[in-house]
Amino acid sequence: MPIYNAPLADMRFILNEVFNAPQFWQANEKLAHLDSATADAILEEMAKFTQNITLSINRSGDEEGARFENGQVYTATNFKDAFKQYAEGGWIGLSADEEWGGQGMPKMLTVLADEMLFATNPSFMLYPLLSVGAGMALSSYASQEQKEKYLPKIYSGEWTGTMCLTEPHAGTDLGIIKTKAEPNADGSYHITGTKIFITGGDHDLTENIIHLVLAKTPDAPAGSRGISLFIVPKYLVNDDGHLDERNAVGPGSIEHKMGIKASATCVMNFDGAKGYLVGNENEGLAAMFVMMNYERLSMGIQGLGASEFAYQNAAQYATDRLQGRSASGTQSPQKPADSILVHGDVRRMLLNARANNEASRAFAVYVAQQLDITKFSTDAEAIKIANDRVALLTPIAKAYLTDTAFNAVLDAQMCFGGHGYIREWGLEQCVRDLRIAQIYEGTNGVQSQDLIGRKVIKNDGAFIQAFIDEIREEVNQLPSELNFIKDVTLDSATEIEVITRYIIDTAHEDANFSNTVAVDYLHAVGLLSFSYMFAKICHAALDKQTEFYQNKLMLARYFVARILPDLKLRIMRIQSGSDIIMHFDQDYFTTQS
Amino acid sequence: MPIYNAPLADMRFILNEVFNAPQFWQANEKLAHLDSATADAILEEMAKFTQNITLSINRSGDEEGARFENGQVYTATNFKDAFKQYAEGGWIGLSADEEWGGQGMPKMLTVLADEMLFATNPSFMLYPLLSVGAGMALSSYASQEQKEKYLPKIYSGEWTGTMCLTEPHAGTDLGIIKTKAEPNADGSYHITGTKIFITGGDHDLTENIIHLVLAKTPDAPAGSRGISLFIVPKYLVNDDGHLDERNAVGPGSIEHKMGIKASATCVMNFDGAKGYLVGNENEGLAAMFVMMNYERLSMGIQGLGASEFAYQNAAQYATDRLQGRSASGTQSPQKPADSILVHGDVRRMLLNARANNEASRAFAVYVAQQLDITKFSTDAEAIKIANDRVALLTPIAKAYLTDTAFNAVLDAQMCFGGHGYIREWGLEQCVRDLRIAQIYEGTNGVQSQDLIGRKVIKNDGAFIQAFIDEIREEVNQLPSELNFIKDVTLDSATEIEVITRYIIDTAHEDANFSNTVAVDYLHAVGLLSFSYMFAKICHAALDKQTEFYQNKLMLARYFVARILPDLKLRIMRIQSGSDIIMHFDQDYFTTQS
Repeated sequence: MPIYNAPLADMRFILNEVFNAPQFWQANEKLAHLDSATADAILEEMAKFTQNITLSINRSGDEEGARFENGQVYTATNFKDAFKQYAEGGWIGLSADEEWGGQGMPKMLTVLADEMLFATNPSFMLYPLLSVGAGMALSSYASQEQKEKYLPKIYSGEWTGTMCLTEPHAGTDLGIIKTKAEPNADGSYHITGTKIFITGGDHDLTENIIHLVLAKTPDAPAGSRGISLFIVPKYLVNDDGHLDERNAVGPGSIEHKMGIKASATCVMNFDGAKGYLVGNENEGLAAMFVMMNYERLSMGIQGLGASEFAYQNAAQYATDRLQGRSASGTQSPQKPADSILVHGDVRRMLLNARANNEASRAFAVYVAQQLDITKFSTDAEAIKIANDRVALLTPIAKAYLTDTAFNAVLDAQMCFGGHGYIREWGLEQCVRDLRIAQIYEGTNGVQSQDLIGRKVIKNDGAFIQAFIDEIREEVNQLPSELNFIKDVTLDSATEIEVITRYIIDTAHEDANFSNTVAVDYLHAVGLLSFSYMFAKICHAALDKQTEFYQNKLMLARYFVARILPDLKLRIMRIQSGSDIIMHFDQDYFTTQS
Repeated sequence: MPIYNAPLADMRFILNEVFNAPQFWQANEKLAHLDSATADAILEEMAKFTQNITLSINRSGDEEGARFENGQVYTATNFKDAFKQYAEGGWIGLSADEEWGGQGMPKMLTVLADEMLFATNPSFMLYPLLSVGAGMALSSYASQEQKEKYLPKIYSGEWTGTMCLTEPHAGTDLGIIKTKAEPNADGSYHITGTKIFITGGDHDLTENIIHLVLAKTPDAPAGSRGISLFIVPKYLVNDDGHLDERNAVGPGSIEHKMGIKASATCVMNFDGAKGYLVGNENEGLAAMFVMMNYERLSMGIQGLGASEFAYQNAAQYATDRLQGRSASGTQSPQKPADSILVHGDVRRMLLNARANNEASRAFAVYVAQQLDITKFSTDAEAIKIANDRVALLTPIAKAYLTDTAFNAVLDAQMCFGGHGYIREWGLEQCVRDLRIAQIYEGTNGVQSQDLIGRKVIKNDGAFIQAFIDEIREEVNQLPSELNFIKDVTLDSATEIEVITRYIIDTAHEDANFSNTVAVDYLHAVGLLSFSYMFAKICHAALDKQTEFYQNKLMLARYFVARILPDLKLRIMRIQSGSDIIMHFDQDYFTTQS
């Protein structure tokens, strides 16, 4: 039976000591109601909920899966109860505006709550996550009437939300979607088309589901500039807020997937369903990106949660498993063999995962703080800086955190030997469940294109330079005892500065270049970001004598010695140019002779 | 529906042009019966069998799985028919001695046949694979009477074989197994104990199963020097070769696994079963290692097969999938979007897989040739050299080929976007099925310990130095047109030479060191080996003007630019020492605060 103990000590350390969150909240009028004790109580409550509820239905959810029967979807046993408890606990609206029934909590805190949910049950977590994403898009773009009608029900958990983007022929390239929205006389629209990969497209958790749907109006411009966003409820909603007749939308089937099997991934058919325009025609993609960006950060948290879960289970297994003897002499002569923790290679795998978790957690809180500044600050300049930082770091939070987490989960699985391959220990499910995080909400390759194209080349490196400047300013303040992390972080910043300039220059001459090196660049910037996080962690831990803090410094040393050198490899690859990749004829790839 | 076209053109190129196999066979008395046309006919027949039979039951086998009912195991639909056809085709004994009904084919050829089987149905392939492994152990260590009784039935496919090593508490550390073998008055033994993870431990494919079982006799020395090997048939066999009564051995259950679900992985209970000693008491581990080494090379081929299968499907999908436009200008204006093959990042993933496949295939044939020398040569010096080379390269063939293949399969899956995560396209199964190859038959971590400890440090680097000398001698003969691969291969050889000396010296002072750097060292030597293979490939392809050959040179350039630089990263990690890993207290790993 897999274990999970919410890493509250590390969460408190990151929040209170690394980022001084309580002071940050107190200094902000809109967040001054939140103090350290309240934040702590929220984390402790979520720890209980996830350790007791979501963890207990994770494996059964995988084995049972969501079911599609007689045209509707049924969730796995106890999912409905768990969702009810979750909603009643007020968790769905934790970060939502109080105006619509939310609790108005900052992202710095909610990312930590999200981590626990993803660690214990990613399939479950996706149901409320999509609701919150839909809520965000509506908060930003919907009319007051629409907000009043839908938001309180979504945040109370009476209804859920979805995002309906992908079609069989259109995933990354939404410009070619075919779903049509034809205007009705009453101002609503007639929605026709098929959407696929719709998370929570149907289920039995709530009485209604609010679909946010991308579609094209009859005279819309071609491509991504001709996409509009519509609200399409499963059951139409009366003006008094009660449910009316069933809308012409429903699931055609559910996908059979590698993992997250308890999350219903639906094919959704819109057969002339009634839809309501959100915002203006042809501005749907912008509205949807509010939601997408929120999800993208969350996918990074999915990685972190899975990696923490995998690490904890692997560390416990490695402690208990007796096999072989220590190379430097028997450690437990009274036992038939030593714990496999004596073996350097097992430690290497565990330390890879743990270093990843601690840096990822700091990075998630760092990005969340930037998001909180954009939402709660009243200082226009601070908001602009934070907005740029969020734009730059969102693809890294999504892709780098899920790539490194997937490797960490694989390492943790390997600690179990053959036992990692069977269901019993929970690791094989963790691998399967996490794999999707690298793929959905824009593949990690697409995230890398977003980073290198829109976030770096397009602004001639302004966003990344500002980030590098911040790193330099802060890291230069580290005392000389921390030179082991200070020097390499500054060196890495310079390496990124130089290679960024090289990329921008080369991209102007070679249109294909940036696409061929984008993933390596994203990883290089991710490594710099993690080095920066470890510098912050070390700064907070220095001069504190307990083992907890001293181990933070040691883990940072491990990161410097064993993980950060990958940055040099990434840069070598970037310097190899695009010709070696673009040279091959298209036919080459499917030709053997 | 997944596709597979056996890569016969590349197989012929590797066999005939890179390794000049027909000349090698003609020059050897025991292999002179084999010519190029016969070898080709065998490959073509296997291509048909795998494209038509094993591929067609791969997905259904995964969905249905092996079943455990009423104390016995049933294989998935059509597996019995396929096994019957496979046996009747004479495939099981393809590499076995003619004396026992085999066809006496060299490993250089059979690795290519094995690749096709693993590509199309790894679950199926494991049934005959274990039979052949059991046959090899019996061929080497069993008495004449035992050979006559069991080998012809195994090679004809009337019976199958298993290897029963692992116990619940003993995997890598076989010295602590508890299964007991008490002598009976008639010279047989009374076998009692539980074995787990037994591939093909029970099934309905054949009327009998011959288990090879490791157990301890009553007065056996402690540890691995007190292990004996026993034949334990499911049904006892009369002296006339007919089946007698059921033996007291049977499956207790089957494991529920991440993948290879159609392969029955059994818990086997030996309740006073009758067993027959193979060879001498307390020498069982050596006999089992004959089988293990055979399996280890095969696991590398499992990686290659999966990677080839994944590549072919991803390349076809990428060709057909239209999404976005080329960065350097629209390629297919008549279509709604360009093929995703225009995107550099998609090409990068495909080229990673293809470069891995072509180098892996060459490496497999190279190691197979060394095995053939040990088996068929009459030159004692040549046999010794080849034996050393096989000892050195077996852990690399197992671990490096499966590690690189797993990454290649992940890259191929990613080319599908969300479609790679659902069953329909076959990629998610391929990932799940392949993952076990990194874990079983000795985890890749354990392979790395074997390489660095027994194969390098123990002989003071003699084996690796001989390999480096061979590389230098052969690569130095490359003409200057091939300097792009010649120079880096020679440089890499020197880097391995230097780091090997550093490792040996450091290991003498620090007992933990080698364990902490073993995986990085194995990858570094793997990269050198692949560079050597590409040097051989380029040498064979140079001066031949068709696109087929020119593309081999281009792919080698891709390898040099994009893959080989990882060697430098591995060396940086090795140089970081063991203290950063061994420093942490054992308690640290399970402590949060």
